[in-house]
Amino acid sequence: MLSKEIIGIIGGTGPEGQGLALRLGLAGFPIIIGSRNPEKGTAAIEKLLSIAPDLSLSCKDNLSTAEQSDIVVISVPFEAHQPTLEAIKSHLVGKIVINVVVPLTFNKGTAYPVVLPEGSAAVQSQNLLPESKVISAFHNVAAPHLLTLSHSVDCDVIICGDDEQAKRKVCSLAEHIQGVKSIDGGPLSNAQFSEQLTALLINLNKIYKSHTMIRFTGLPA
Amino acid sequence: MLSKEIIGIIGGTGPEGQGLALRLGLAGFPIIIGSRNPEKGTAAIEKLLSIAPDLSLSCKDNLSTAEQSDIVVISVPFEAHQPTLEAIKSHLVGKIVINVVVPLTFNKGTAYPVVLPEGSAAVQSQNLLPESKVISAFHNVAAPHLLTLSHSVDCDVIICGDDEQAKRKVCSLAEHIQGVKSIDGGPLSNAQFSEQLTALLINLNKIYKSHTMIRFTGLPA
Repeated sequence: MLSKEIIGIIGGTGPEGQGLALRLGLAGFPIIIGSRNPEKGTAAIEKLLSIAPDLSLSCKDNLSTAEQSDIVVISVPFEAHQPTLEAIKSHLVGKIVINVVVPLTFNKGTAYPVVLPEGSAAVQSQNLLPESKVISAFHNVAAPHLLTLSHSVDCDVIICGDDEQAKRKVCSLAEHIQGVKSIDGGPLSNAQFSEQLTALLINLNKIYKSHTMIRFTGLPA
Repeated sequence: MLSKEIIGIIGGTGPEGQGLALRLGLAGFPIIIGSRNPEKGTAAIEKLLSIAPDLSLSCKDNLSTAEQSDIVVISVPFEAHQPTLEAIKSHLVGKIVINVVVPLTFNKGTAYPVVLPEGSAAVQSQNLLPESKVISAFHNVAAPHLLTLSHSVDCDVIICGDDEQAKRKVCSLAEHIQGVKSIDGGPLSNAQFSEQLTALLINLNKIYKSHTMIRFTGLPA
Protein backbone atom coordinates (compact mmCIF):
# COMPACT_ATOMS: atom_id res chain seq x y z
CA MET A 1 0.00 0.00 0.00
CA LEU A 2 1.21 3.50 -0.79
CA SER A 3 1.71 5.62 2.26
CA LYS A 4 -1.32 7.78 2.87
CA GLU A 5 -1.42 11.50 3.54
CA ILE A 6 -1.26 12.60 7.15
CA ILE A 7 -4.49 14.27 8.18
CA GLY A 8 -4.38 16.88 10.91
CA ILE A 9 -7.58 17.77 12.68
CA ILE A 10 -7.54 21.19 14.32
CA GLY A 11 -10.21 21.11 17.01
CA GLY A 12 -9.79 17.38 17.02
CA THR A 13 -10.91 16.93 20.60
CA GLY A 14 -14.49 18.05 19.91
CA PRO A 15 -17.08 15.39 19.02
CA GLU A 16 -17.01 16.09 15.25
CA GLY A 17 -13.21 16.18 15.18
CA GLN A 18 -13.01 12.91 17.13
CA GLY A 19 -15.55 11.29 14.84
CA LEU A 20 -13.62 12.26 11.72
CA ALA A 21 -10.35 11.15 13.34
CA LEU A 22 -11.87 7.75 14.08
CA ARG A 23 -13.40 7.13 10.67
CA LEU A 24 -10.51 8.51 8.59
CA GLY A 25 -8.04 6.73 10.87
CA LEU A 26 -9.90 3.47 10.24
CA ALA A 27 -9.49 4.10 6.51
CA GLY A 28 -5.74 3.96 7.07
CA PHE A 29 -4.80 7.63 7.25
CA PRO A 30 -2.34 8.64 9.98
CA ILE A 31 -4.13 11.23 12.11
CA ILE A 32 -2.78 14.08 14.20
CA ILE A 33 -5.24 15.57 16.63
CA GLY A 34 -4.54 19.25 17.12
CA SER A 35 -5.46 20.81 20.43
CA ARG A 36 -4.36 23.73 22.55
CA ASN A 37 -4.88 21.49 25.56
CA PRO A 38 -2.56 18.44 25.79
CA GLU A 39 -4.72 16.78 28.45
CA LYS A 40 -7.80 16.94 26.24
CA GLY A 41 -5.74 15.61 23.35
CA THR A 42 -4.50 12.65 25.37
CA ALA A 43 -8.02 11.89 26.60
CA ALA A 44 -9.33 11.96 23.01
CA ILE A 45 -6.62 9.58 21.86
CA GLU A 46 -7.32 7.16 24.72
CA LYS A 47 -11.02 7.23 23.90
CA LEU A 48 -10.49 6.62 20.18
CA LEU A 49 -7.95 3.83 20.77
CA SER A 50 -10.44 2.14 23.09
CA ILE A 51 -12.85 2.03 20.14
CA ALA A 52 -10.27 1.09 17.48
CA PRO A 53 -6.89 0.01 18.92
CA ASP A 54 -5.07 -0.10 15.56
CA LEU A 55 -5.43 3.58 14.66
CA SER A 56 -2.32 5.61 13.92
CA LEU A 57 -3.00 8.58 16.17
CA SER A 58 -0.99 11.30 17.79
CA CYS A 59 -1.76 14.59 19.47
CA LYS A 60 0.08 17.87 19.04
CA ASP A 61 -0.53 21.56 19.49
CA ASN A 62 -2.33 23.29 16.62
CA LEU A 63 0.80 24.78 15.08
CA SER A 64 2.71 21.48 14.99
CA THR A 65 -0.39 19.69 13.72
CA ALA A 66 -0.70 22.10 10.80
CA GLU A 67 3.02 21.89 10.10
CA GLN A 68 3.24 18.09 10.09
CA SER A 69 0.01 17.29 8.22
CA ASP A 70 -0.59 17.00 4.48
CA ILE A 71 -4.29 17.77 4.71
CA VAL A 72 -5.72 19.89 7.53
CA VAL A 73 -9.31 19.74 8.79
CA ILE A 74 -10.59 22.83 10.63
CA SER A 75 -13.21 21.71 13.13
CA VAL A 76 -13.30 24.44 15.76
CA PRO A 77 -16.24 26.46 17.15
CA PHE A 78 -16.95 29.46 14.95
CA GLU A 79 -15.76 31.84 17.70
CA ALA A 80 -12.28 30.29 17.39
CA HIS A 81 -12.28 30.15 13.57
CA GLN A 82 -10.50 33.36 12.68
CA PRO A 83 -7.86 33.45 15.50
CA THR A 84 -7.05 29.76 15.01
CA LEU A 85 -6.46 30.18 11.27
CA GLU A 86 -4.37 33.31 11.78
CA ALA A 87 -2.17 31.45 14.26
CA ILE A 88 -1.41 28.49 11.98
CA LYS A 89 -1.74 30.10 8.56
CA SER A 90 1.96 29.92 7.61
CA HIS A 91 1.86 26.12 7.88
CA LEU A 92 -1.20 25.79 5.66
CA VAL A 93 0.34 27.30 2.52
CA GLY A 94 -0.24 25.08 -0.50
CA LYS A 95 -2.26 22.56 1.50
CA ILE A 96 -5.83 21.36 1.27
CA VAL A 97 -7.76 22.84 4.20
CA ILE A 98 -11.10 21.19 4.87
CA ASN A 99 -13.45 23.57 6.62
CA VAL A 100 -16.14 22.01 8.80
CA VAL A 101 -17.00 25.19 10.71
CA VAL A 102 -20.63 26.33 10.91
CA PRO A 103 -21.53 29.81 12.14
CA LEU A 104 -24.67 29.40 14.23
CA THR A 105 -26.49 31.30 16.90
CA PHE A 106 -29.16 30.03 19.29
CA ASN A 107 -32.30 31.78 20.47
CA LYS A 108 -34.62 30.00 22.92
CA GLY A 109 -33.18 26.65 21.93
CA THR A 110 -33.58 27.15 18.19
CA ALA A 111 -30.48 27.22 15.96
CA TYR A 112 -30.17 29.98 13.35
CA PRO A 113 -27.49 30.45 10.68
CA VAL A 114 -25.31 33.50 11.23
CA VAL A 115 -25.22 35.55 8.05
CA LEU A 116 -21.57 36.50 7.51
CA PRO A 117 -20.48 39.35 5.23
CA GLU A 118 -18.46 36.75 3.28
CA GLY A 119 -21.48 34.44 3.05
CA SER A 120 -19.90 31.47 4.83
CA ALA A 121 -17.18 30.38 7.23
CA ALA A 122 -15.60 28.58 4.27
CA VAL A 123 -15.18 31.76 2.23
CA GLN A 124 -14.01 33.58 5.35
CA SER A 125 -11.29 30.95 5.74
CA GLN A 126 -10.28 31.15 2.07
CA ASN A 127 -9.91 34.93 2.49
CA LEU A 128 -7.72 34.35 5.56
CA LEU A 129 -5.71 31.63 3.76
CA PRO A 130 -5.24 32.89 0.20
CA GLU A 131 -2.43 30.40 -0.45
CA SER A 132 -4.36 27.32 0.72
CA LYS A 133 -6.98 25.27 -1.11
CA VAL A 134 -10.04 25.57 1.10
CA ILE A 135 -12.73 22.94 0.64
CA SER A 136 -15.92 22.87 2.72
CA ALA A 137 -17.24 19.49 3.81
CA PHE A 138 -18.64 17.34 6.63
CA HIS A 139 -20.98 20.01 8.06
CA ASN A 140 -23.88 17.63 8.26
CA VAL A 141 -22.35 14.35 9.39
CA ALA A 142 -23.48 13.80 12.97
CA ALA A 143 -20.65 13.04 15.36
CA PRO A 144 -22.53 10.32 17.30
CA HIS A 145 -22.91 8.35 14.05
CA LEU A 146 -19.23 8.77 13.21
CA LEU A 147 -18.33 7.54 16.69
CA THR A 148 -20.56 4.44 16.54
CA LEU A 149 -18.71 1.84 14.53
CA SER A 150 -21.57 -0.65 14.65
CA HIS A 151 -23.32 1.14 11.80
CA SER A 152 -22.30 2.79 8.55
CA VAL A 153 -22.83 6.53 8.23
CA ASP A 154 -26.10 7.06 6.37
CA CYS A 155 -25.27 10.51 5.01
CA ASP A 156 -24.45 12.49 1.90
CA VAL A 157 -21.63 14.99 2.36
CA ILE A 158 -21.85 18.24 0.37
CA ILE A 159 -18.42 19.32 -0.80
CA CYS A 160 -17.75 22.84 -2.12
CA GLY A 161 -14.52 24.33 -3.41
CA ASP A 162 -12.85 26.29 -6.17
CA ASP A 163 -9.86 23.98 -6.77
CA GLU A 164 -11.27 21.06 -8.74
CA GLN A 165 -8.40 18.70 -8.00
CA ALA A 166 -8.57 19.40 -4.28
CA LYS A 167 -12.33 18.98 -4.35
CA ARG A 168 -12.06 15.59 -6.01
CA LYS A 169 -9.52 14.54 -3.41
CA VAL A 170 -11.84 15.53 -0.54
CA CYS A 171 -14.74 13.74 -2.25
CA SER A 172 -12.63 10.60 -2.34
CA LEU A 173 -11.54 11.12 1.27
CA ALA A 174 -15.14 11.47 2.45
CA GLU A 175 -16.10 8.24 0.72
CA HIS A 176 -13.47 6.41 2.76
CA ILE A 177 -16.04 6.73 5.55
CA GLN A 178 -18.31 3.71 5.30
CA GLY A 179 -21.74 4.73 4.04
CA VAL A 180 -20.88 8.29 3.04
CA LYS A 181 -21.55 9.54 -0.47
CA SER A 182 -19.93 12.76 -1.71
CA ILE A 183 -22.08 15.42 -3.33
CA ASP A 184 -20.48 18.11 -5.49
CA GLY A 185 -21.91 21.29 -4.01
CA GLY A 186 -20.23 23.58 -6.53
CA PRO A 187 -17.86 26.49 -5.86
CA LEU A 188 -16.75 27.51 -2.38
CA SER A 189 -19.24 30.38 -2.45
CA ASN A 190 -21.97 27.72 -2.28
CA ALA A 191 -20.69 26.52 1.12
CA GLN A 192 -23.19 28.85 2.77
CA PHE A 193 -26.07 26.59 1.71
CA SER A 194 -24.50 23.55 3.31
CA GLU A 195 -23.56 25.50 6.45
CA GLN A 196 -27.13 26.86 6.72
CA LEU A 197 -28.61 23.38 6.41
CA THR A 198 -26.99 22.55 9.75
CA ALA A 199 -29.49 24.76 11.58
CA LEU A 200 -32.39 22.79 10.10
CA LEU A 201 -30.84 19.49 11.15
CA ILE A 202 -30.10 20.71 14.69
CA ASN A 203 -33.69 21.89 15.03
CA LEU A 204 -35.00 18.53 13.78
CA ASN A 205 -32.70 16.81 16.29
CA LYS A 206 -34.43 18.69 19.07
CA ILE A 207 -37.89 17.69 17.84
CA TYR A 208 -37.02 14.03 17.20
CA LYS A 209 -34.38 13.58 19.94
CA SER A 210 -32.13 12.16 17.25
CA HIS A 211 -28.97 12.83 15.26
CA THR A 212 -30.41 13.68 11.87
CA MET A 213 -28.47 13.59 8.62
CA ILE A 214 -29.50 13.77 4.96
CA ARG A 215 -29.56 11.92 1.69
CA PHE A 216 -30.33 13.62 -1.60
CA THR A 217 -32.71 11.84 -3.94
CA GLY A 218 -33.42 12.37 -7.62
CA LEU A 219 -29.73 12.62 -8.53
CA PRO A 220 -28.42 10.83 -11.62
CA ALA A 221 -27.63 7.19 -10.80
CA MET B 1 -65.90 6.45 1.68
CA LEU B 2 -66.46 9.70 3.53
CA SER B 3 -66.43 12.73 1.29
CA LYS B 4 -63.01 14.33 1.29
CA GLU B 5 -62.15 17.97 1.81
CA ILE B 6 -62.00 20.16 -1.28
CA ILE B 7 -58.47 21.39 -1.84
CA GLY B 8 -57.98 24.69 -3.62
CA ILE B 9 -54.60 25.43 -5.12
CA ILE B 10 -53.92 29.13 -5.61
CA GLY B 11 -51.24 29.37 -8.27
CA GLY B 12 -52.37 25.98 -9.43
CA THR B 13 -51.26 26.47 -13.02
CA GLY B 14 -47.54 26.59 -12.11
CA PRO B 15 -45.56 23.34 -12.17
CA GLU B 16 -45.62 22.83 -8.39
CA GLY B 17 -49.32 23.64 -8.18
CA GLN B 18 -50.10 21.25 -11.03
CA GLY B 19 -47.99 18.53 -9.45
CA LEU B 20 -49.79 18.84 -6.12
CA ALA B 21 -53.17 18.96 -7.90
CA LEU B 22 -52.32 15.72 -9.70
CA ARG B 23 -51.05 13.78 -6.70
CA LEU B 24 -53.67 14.99 -4.22
CA GLY B 25 -56.37 14.52 -6.85
CA LEU B 26 -55.21 10.93 -7.34
CA ALA B 27 -55.60 10.43 -3.59
CA GLY B 28 -59.29 11.22 -4.04
CA PHE B 29 -59.49 14.86 -3.04
CA PRO B 30 -61.62 17.13 -5.23
CA ILE B 31 -59.29 19.85 -6.50
CA ILE B 32 -59.99 23.42 -7.55
CA ILE B 33 -57.20 25.08 -9.48
CA GLY B 34 -57.15 28.79 -8.77
CA SER B 35 -55.83 31.10 -11.43
CA ARG B 36 -56.27 34.69 -12.51
CA ASN B 37 -56.09 33.46 -16.10
CA PRO B 38 -58.96 31.13 -17.19
CA GLU B 39 -57.08 29.98 -20.30
CA LYS B 40 -54.10 28.84 -18.26
CA GLY B 41 -56.47 27.12 -15.85
CA THR B 42 -58.21 25.25 -18.66
CA ALA B 43 -54.88 24.23 -20.16
CA ALA B 44 -53.69 22.92 -16.78
CA ILE B 45 -56.86 20.88 -16.35
CA GLU B 46 -56.56 19.38 -19.84
CA LYS B 47 -52.95 18.47 -19.16
CA LEU B 48 -53.70 16.85 -15.80
CA LEU B 49 -56.71 14.93 -17.13
CA SER B 50 -54.53 13.61 -19.97
CA ILE B 51 -52.28 12.11 -17.25
CA ALA B 52 -55.08 10.92 -14.95
CA PRO B 53 -58.55 11.03 -16.53
CA ASP B 54 -60.46 10.23 -13.32
CA LEU B 55 -59.43 13.30 -11.33
CA SER B 56 -62.11 15.56 -9.90
CA LEU B 57 -60.78 18.89 -11.15
CA SER B 58 -62.18 22.32 -11.78
CA CYS B 59 -60.72 25.73 -12.36
CA LYS B 60 -61.89 29.03 -10.87
CA ASP B 61 -60.55 32.48 -10.16
CA ASN B 62 -58.53 32.84 -6.96
CA LEU B 63 -61.35 34.35 -4.94
CA SER B 64 -63.88 31.64 -5.81
CA THR B 65 -61.24 28.97 -5.28
CA ALA B 66 -60.54 30.23 -1.77
CA GLU B 67 -64.26 30.56 -1.05
CA GLN B 68 -65.23 27.08 -2.21
CA SER B 69 -62.29 25.09 -0.79
CA ASP B 70 -61.87 23.54 2.65
CA ILE B 71 -58.08 23.60 2.55
CA VAL B 72 -56.17 26.16 0.49
CA VAL B 73 -52.65 25.71 -0.87
CA ILE B 74 -50.73 28.90 -1.70
CA SER B 75 -48.29 28.12 -4.49
CA VAL B 76 -47.59 31.47 -6.15
CA PRO B 77 -44.28 33.20 -6.92
CA PHE B 78 -43.05 35.17 -3.93
CA GLU B 79 -43.67 38.48 -5.75
CA ALA B 80 -47.39 37.62 -5.83
CA HIS B 81 -47.53 36.31 -2.25
CA GLN B 82 -48.69 39.38 -0.35
CA PRO B 83 -51.15 40.84 -2.91
CA THR B 84 -52.68 37.41 -3.57
CA LEU B 85 -53.30 36.76 0.12
CA GLU B 86 -54.72 40.23 0.68
CA ALA B 87 -57.16 39.72 -2.18
CA ILE B 88 -58.56 36.40 -0.91
CA LYS B 89 -58.03 36.76 2.82
CA SER B 90 -61.71 37.03 3.78
CA HIS B 91 -62.36 33.57 2.33
CA LEU B 92 -59.50 31.97 4.24
CA VAL B 93 -60.82 32.70 7.75
CA GLY B 94 -60.78 29.57 9.91
CA LYS B 95 -59.25 27.45 7.16
CA ILE B 96 -55.99 25.57 6.89
CA VAL B 97 -53.72 27.47 4.50
CA ILE B 98 -50.74 25.48 3.25
CA ASN B 99 -47.91 27.79 2.25
CA VAL B 100 -45.50 26.48 -0.39
CA VAL B 101 -43.99 29.87 -1.24
CA VAL B 102 -40.19 30.27 -1.18
CA PRO B 103 -38.60 33.72 -1.30
CA LEU B 104 -35.53 33.37 -3.52
CA THR B 105 -33.29 35.62 -5.52
CA PHE B 106 -30.85 34.65 -8.27
CA ASN B 107 -27.38 36.03 -8.94
CA LYS B 108 -25.36 34.68 -11.88
CA GLY B 109 -27.47 31.54 -11.97
CA THR B 110 -27.11 30.76 -8.25
CA ALA B 111 -30.20 30.76 -6.03
CA TYR B 112 -30.05 32.56 -2.68
CA PRO B 113 -32.67 32.68 0.09
CA VAL B 114 -34.19 36.12 0.60
CA VAL B 115 -33.97 37.04 4.28
CA LEU B 116 -37.37 38.48 5.19
CA PRO B 117 -37.95 40.65 8.27
CA GLU B 118 -40.50 38.02 9.37
CA GLY B 119 -38.01 35.19 8.78
CA SER B 120 -40.09 33.31 6.22
CA ALA B 121 -42.90 33.58 3.69
CA ALA B 122 -44.88 31.29 5.99
CA VAL B 123 -44.73 33.69 8.92
CA GLN B 124 -45.44 36.59 6.57
CA SER B 125 -48.59 34.79 5.47
CA GLN B 126 -49.66 34.04 9.05
CA ASN B 127 -49.26 37.75 9.83
CA LEU B 128 -51.44 38.60 6.81
CA LEU B 129 -53.99 35.91 7.73
CA PRO B 130 -54.32 36.06 11.52
CA GLU B 131 -57.60 34.11 11.44
CA SER B 132 -56.26 31.23 9.31
CA LYS B 133 -54.17 28.23 10.33
CA VAL B 134 -51.03 28.60 8.24
CA ILE B 135 -48.92 25.48 7.76
CA SER B 136 -45.75 25.43 5.65
CA ALA B 137 -45.09 22.36 3.52
CA PHE B 138 -44.06 20.99 0.14
CA HIS B 139 -41.19 23.44 -0.48
CA ASN B 140 -38.81 20.73 -1.49
CA VAL B 141 -40.91 18.32 -3.54
CA ALA B 142 -39.78 18.71 -7.14
CA ALA B 143 -42.66 19.31 -9.56
CA PRO B 144 -41.29 17.01 -12.29
CA HIS B 145 -41.40 14.10 -9.86
CA LEU B 146 -44.94 14.95 -8.80
CA LEU B 147 -45.96 15.06 -12.46
CA THR B 148 -44.38 11.70 -13.36
CA LEU B 149 -46.76 9.02 -12.20
CA SER B 150 -44.44 6.18 -13.18
CA HIS B 151 -42.47 6.62 -9.97
CA SER B 152 -43.26 7.32 -6.35
CA VAL B 153 -42.02 10.60 -4.89
CA ASP B 154 -38.77 9.88 -3.05
CA CYS B 155 -38.95 12.81 -0.67
CA ASP B 156 -39.46 13.86 2.93
CA VAL B 157 -41.72 16.88 3.36
CA ILE B 158 -40.93 19.23 6.25
CA ILE B 159 -44.12 20.56 7.83
CA CYS B 160 -44.12 23.54 10.20
CA GLY B 161 -47.03 25.17 11.97
CA ASP B 162 -48.37 26.45 15.26
CA ASP B 163 -51.77 24.71 15.21
CA GLU B 164 -51.01 21.10 16.12
CA GLN B 165 -54.28 19.70 14.79
CA ALA B 166 -53.86 21.49 11.45
CA LYS B 167 -50.25 20.32 11.27
CA ARG B 168 -51.24 16.71 11.82
CA LYS B 169 -53.86 17.05 9.10
CA VAL B 170 -51.30 18.40 6.59
CA CYS B 171 -48.85 15.63 7.57
CA SER B 172 -51.53 13.11 6.75
CA LEU B 173 -52.40 14.93 3.52
CA ALA B 174 -48.76 14.91 2.38
CA GLU B 175 -48.52 11.17 2.99
CA HIS B 176 -51.39 10.62 0.56
CA ILE B 177 -48.72 11.29 -2.07
CA GLN B 178 -47.10 7.96 -2.84
CA GLY B 179 -43.56 7.85 -1.44
CA VAL B 180 -43.76 11.01 0.65
CA LYS B 181 -42.97 10.94 4.35
CA SER B 182 -43.95 13.87 6.58
CA ILE B 183 -41.38 15.42 8.88
CA ASP B 184 -42.48 17.56 11.83
CA GLY B 185 -40.41 20.70 11.36
CA GLY B 186 -41.69 22.37 14.52
CA PRO B 187 -43.42 25.75 14.89
CA LEU B 188 -44.21 27.99 11.93
CA SER B 189 -41.20 30.15 12.80
CA ASN B 190 -39.04 27.19 11.72
CA ALA B 191 -40.41 27.39 8.17
CA GLN B 192 -37.45 29.58 7.24
CA PHE B 193 -35.10 26.58 7.44
CA SER B 194 -37.20 24.56 5.03
CA GLU B 195 -37.63 27.53 2.69
CA GLN B 196 -33.87 28.19 2.73
CA LEU B 197 -33.11 24.56 1.89
CA THR B 198 -34.76 25.15 -1.47
CA ALA B 199 -31.81 27.29 -2.61
CA LEU B 200 -29.40 24.43 -1.91
CA LEU B 201 -31.54 21.99 -3.89
CA ILE B 202 -31.92 24.38 -6.85
CA ASN B 203 -28.15 24.87 -6.91
CA LEU B 204 -27.56 21.11 -6.82
CA ASN B 205 -30.08 20.72 -9.66
CA LYS B 206 -27.93 22.99 -11.78
CA ILE B 207 -24.76 21.00 -11.04
CA TYR B 208 -26.35 17.58 -11.54
CA LYS B 209 -28.95 18.53 -14.18
CA SER B 210 -31.52 16.82 -12.00
CA HIS B 211 -34.53 17.45 -9.80
CA THR B 212 -33.07 16.89 -6.37
CA MET B 213 -35.09 16.17 -3.24
CA ILE B 214 -34.18 15.02 0.27
CA ARG B 215 -34.59 12.26 2.80
CA PHE B 216 -33.60 12.65 6.41
CA THR B 217 -31.69 9.81 8.01
CA GLY B 218 -31.02 9.01 11.63
CA LEU B 219 -34.61 9.68 12.69
CA PRO B 220 -36.35 7.31 15.10
CA ALA B 221 -37.80 4.33 13.24
